[in-house]
Amino acid sequence: MSDIQGYNPRTGEPHGNPIPSTAVHEVDALARAGAAAFESWAALSSHERATYLDAVADALDAASERLVALADAETALGAPRLTTELKRTTNQLRLFGDVLREGSWVEATLDSPNPDIIPPRPDLRRLLRPLGTVGVFAASNFPFAFSVAGGDTASALAAGCPVVVKAHPSHPGTSHETARVVAAALPGGVFGIVHGQQAGVALVEHPAIKAVGFTGSTAGGRALFDLAAGRPEPIPFYGELGSVNPTVVLPGAAGARPEGFAAEFVGSLTLGVGQFCTNPGLLFAPESLVPALGGAVSAATGGPMLNERMCDAYRSGTAGLGSSGLVTPVAEGTAPDEGWSVPPRLYSVPLATFADNLGKLTEEHFGPAAVVVTYSSPEELLDVLPLLPGSLTGTVHADEGEHALAGRVAEALRPAVGRLIFNGWPTGVAVAWGMHHGGPWPATTSALHTSVGATAIRRWLAPVTYQSWPEDLLPPELRSDNPLGIPRRVDGVLGVH
Amino acid sequence: MSDIQGYNPRTGEPHGNPIPSTAVHEVDALARAGAAAFESWAALSSHERATYLDAVADALDAASERLVALADAETALGAPRLTTELKRTTNQLRLFGDVLREGSWVEATLDSPNPDIIPPRPDLRRLLRPLGTVGVFAASNFPFAFSVAGGDTASALAAGCPVVVKAHPSHPGTSHETARVVAAALPGGVFGIVHGQQAGVALVEHPAIKAVGFTGSTAGGRALFDLAAGRPEPIPFYGELGSVNPTVVLPGAAGARPEGFAAEFVGSLTLGVGQFCTNPGLLFAPESLVPALGGAVSAATGGPMLNERMCDAYRSGTAGLGSSGLVTPVAEGTAPDEGWSVPPRLYSVPLATFADNLGKLTEEHFGPAAVVVTYSSPEELLDVLPLLPGSLTGTVHADEGEHALAGRVAEALRPAVGRLIFNGWPTGVAVAWGMHHGGPWPATTSALHTSVGATAIRRWLAPVTYQSWPEDLLPPELRSDNPLGIPRRVDGVLGVH
Repeated sequence: MSDIQGYNPRTGEPHGNPIPSTAVHEVDALARAGAAAFESWAALSSHERATYLDAVADALDAASERLVALADAETALGAPRLTTELKRTTNQLRLFGDVLREGSWVEATLDSPNPDIIPPRPDLRRLLRPLGTVGVFAASNFPFAFSVAGGDTASALAAGCPVVVKAHPSHPGTSHETARVVAAALPGGVFGIVHGQQAGVALVEHPAIKAVGFTGSTAGGRALFDLAAGRPEPIPFYGELGSVNPTVVLPGAAGARPEGFAAEFVGSLTLGVGQFCTNPGLLFAPESLVPALGGAVSAATGGPMLNERMCDAYRSGTAGLGSSGLVTPVAEGTAPDEGWSVPPRLYSVPLATFADNLGKLTEEHFGPAAVVVTYSSPEELLDVLPLLPGSLTGTVHADEGEHALAGRVAEALRPAVGRLIFNGWPTGVAVAWGMHHGGPWPATTSALHTSVGATAIRRWLAPVTYQSWPEDLLPPELRSDNPLGIPRRVDGVLGVH
Repeated sequence: MSDIQGYNPRTGEPHGNPIPSTAVHEVDALARAGAAAFESWAALSSHERATYLDAVADALDAASERLVALADAETALGAPRLTTELKRTTNQLRLFGDVLREGSWVEATLDSPNPDIIPPRPDLRRLLRPLGTVGVFAASNFPFAFSVAGGDTASALAAGCPVVVKAHPSHPGTSHETARVVAAALPGGVFGIVHGQQAGVALVEHPAIKAVGFTGSTAGGRALFDLAAGRPEPIPFYGELGSVNPTVVLPGAAGARPEGFAAEFVGSLTLGVGQFCTNPGLLFAPESLVPALGGAVSAATGGPMLNERMCDAYRSGTAGLGSSGLVTPVAEGTAPDEGWSVPPRLYSVPLATFADNLGKLTEEHFGPAAVVVTYSSPEELLDVLPLLPGSLTGTVHADEGEHALAGRVAEALRPAVGRLIFNGWPTGVAVAWGMHHGGPWPATTSALHTSVGATAIRRWLAPVTYQSWPEDLLPPELRSDNPLGIPRRVDGVLGVH
C-alpha cells in the first residue's frame, strides 16, 4: 500500500508531501464513526443542518486563497477557474441550506382516514428520512465542485447523512486540506476522508455505508457499481460516468456565422483542457461548417491534463481514432511545451459511416477532442440520433426559421440525455432547483437521479409512513397543525397547510 | 419448455387448461411492441392516460364475477376476499388517474435566469419523463392487487410506460383472463403478458426493457435483481421481497385485554392463510401474554396454501424451526382436511436467545406462523430492535400511559421499516397519497421506492431539464403561462403558478 503522491501537471514532477493511503481498519473506524454520528446528525432540524452547511461554506470561502493555490499546483486548472469553482462549491452548500429551510424536501404527506373506501384508509403520514452514512468518490476534474466538499457531499450532509469521502489521487493535497476545513466545521464523526484504491473498495463494501456517490470513468464506476450491487445487502450506487454530449447544428445556424460558431464550439471543447463531463465531443453539422471548425481548432491551444494516465489515454485514444480508417483527421491545435500537455484535436466522419460504427465512434476520449459527424439531410440525422448512447446533455443550434426542426431534433435526443440545451453550450452546469445533471447509462448508473441541483438530495432519502400515530409522537413535519409551516400534501393537495 | 398448469389448492388437482409457456422469441416481440408503442403512449396528455386507466378499471369491474371465480378456483383465497381485492385493484388504477390529473407528478420546475451568480444560471425547466417499457413480475399471493393489473402495472402505465407482465404460475388462468381484459382497454403494444420462468429471465435481459417491478420471494427477487444489475446497460429493479414485520406489545397494552389482543393478532396472522407480505411474523411481548396467544392460535383454523411448493416450504420450515432447539413450540391450530392446507403455528423464544440467533430467527416462514419473543424489560428490548433486518412494517401496541416508551420503540424500529403502525395491524395496505410500502433490504431491493401509493409512479420516471428553450418548443407543463394549471416549483416556490 503506497502513499498517494500529488504531481504538478505543468512539470510532471511531484508536488507536496505524499498522503498515506488509508488502511482498511481505518476505513472501518471512519464508517463506524459515521454510523455512530448518524442518529444525532439526522435528528437535527432542517434549520440546524442548514446552519452547519453555511458554516462549511463560509470556512471554505475563508480558506479560498490557500485551497486554490494548492489545487492549481496539483491540477494546473488555473487560479481564475479554480477560484470560481470553489465559489460555485460554497454556493452549492448554501443552496442546500435553502432547500432545507424551504422544507418540502421531506415530502410531508398527510392523508385523513376514510373507513368507507376499498381498501379502508387509516390516518397516514409520510415523510423522507436519511439512509445512513454515505460514501462519496471524488472526481479528478473538479477538485472542488465534484470532490471533497462537492455536490455529493453537500447533498448527503443536507439529507442528514454522515459522509466518508474517497479522495481522488490527482489532487491529494487539496483533498486533505479541504477535508480538514470541512471536518472542523461539523460535529465529530459526520465527515471523514480516505485515500487510496483499496480504501475505496473497503468503503463500498462496508456494511455501515448505505449509499455511494461517484463521479469518474465508466470502467471505474462500473466496477464499483458491481461491488455495490453485489453486496449481501445491495446499496444504491449513483455514478456519473462517461458522456459524449451530442451537439446538433442545424443548417441555418451553421450558415449564419460559421467562424463565430466555431470559436464558441472550440471554447467549450477546450475549457479545462476538455476535462469536463459535459464536453461537446460529438458534433453533428453540415459539411460546409467543417473548414471553420478546423480553423478554430488549429488556432486553439491545449494544456496539461490532470495526470499522466489521462494524458497517455488521450494521446493513444485519439491516435487510435485517427488511424482507425473510419474518420478523417481535420485539425490539431497546439500543445504547450510543458508537462502533460495535449493539443485539441478534431476528426470528421460522414453520417452514414458514423451510423455503421456507432459503438467505436461514440467512445469518450476524455480531453479536448471532438468528432464532427457531417450530414446532408436533417431527415437522415433524425434517424440516427435515437441510436446514441446515454449522455448528460444534448444540444441543438437552430436559427429563427428552424424551430420546428429543432423541436423534432430535441424529441429524437431526449430519451438519451438528461439536459437539452438550445443555442448554447453544455459546459457550465448551473446549481439550481431545476438542474438535472444525469442521464441514461452510460452517462450515469441511475437515470432517475441527479448529482447537481436541489433534487440531488433525494438520492440519500427513503420514505417512512406513520399510520394512526398520536399527534404527540409524530415528527413536527407531520403534525396536523404544521408547526414548521412547510409545504405539504394534505389529502392530495399541495400547499403550506 | 412445459405448459403452465393451474391447480386447485383445495384439492391439489389441476384446474383449467394449461397455458403455453412463452417462447423467448415471443418475449422479444412483446418487448419490441412495447418499445414501438412507447412514444405515442408517453406522448398522451395526463388526462388522456387517466381516461385509459379508468377504462381498464371499469372493464375489470365489469368482469369481476368471472375473474373472482377463476381466481378462487386457482388460489382458494375465497370469493369475498377476492372480490374486495379486485375492487382494491380497480380503485388503485383510479387513484393513479387522480394522480395524473392533479399534475404535480411530473415535478415541473422552472428557474428564471440569473447571470450575476456563480455559476451563472440560464433559463432551466425540469420535468419527469417515462423510462420506457417496464417488466412486471406478478405475485402469487395477490392474484389481482399485486399481479397482472396490480400496483406495478398501474403505476407504470400511469407514468407513460408500456408494460409486459410475467404472470405468476400459481394463477395462470386468472392472469391470462385479466390480461385479456386489460389489453382490450388499451392501445396495441402498450400491454403484454408472458408465462414461464424462461420468459421471465428473457424479459429482464431484454434491451428494450428499461425497468422491472417484482413482488415475491427474497431468493427469486435477488436472482432477478442480480440479472438486472449485471446487464450491459443496468436497469432499475424494484423488488418487494421478504418481511417479518416486527410487532411490539408494550406491557400495558398486553395486560389490558390479553384475550382480545390475542384474537386480533391471530386474525392478522391467519388472514389469507398468512400469505401476506405484511404478515406479523415476529411479535415482541411480555411472557404473560403467551398463554392468551397460544389459546388463540390453538383455536384458529388454517387453510390451503397457494401452491404445493409453498405448502411444503411452510411445513418443512416451521418443522425445522420447531426442532431447532432455539424456540419452544407454543401452539398449533387446525388445518382443514383439504388439499394443500396448513395449520397456524406459534413459537416462543426469550429475548436473549433471540438476540443471539437473530439470523435464524428472523427468517420468514411464508404462511400463518409467528415467533413471539418474550421480554421482561423494555430497555433490553430497545437494545435488540435496532438489530432487526429490514421489514415493510413495524408495529407498536401501547396504552395511554406508554406513549413516551412507544415513541422510543418507534425510533428504534424506524431505520428498519417502511411503515410504522400504532395500535393496529400491518395487514391491509391502504392505497393512498401517503402510503409507503417498502423498506430496507431484504424487504425490498430499493429502500427509496414504494410499490403501493401515489409515489409508486416515481419508479418509472427520470428527469430531463430544458435549458434556454423557446416557449413554443417546450412541453405544456413547462410553459411560462402554465396552460395546464398544474402545481409547479417556480424559482424555488411550490404552487399553482
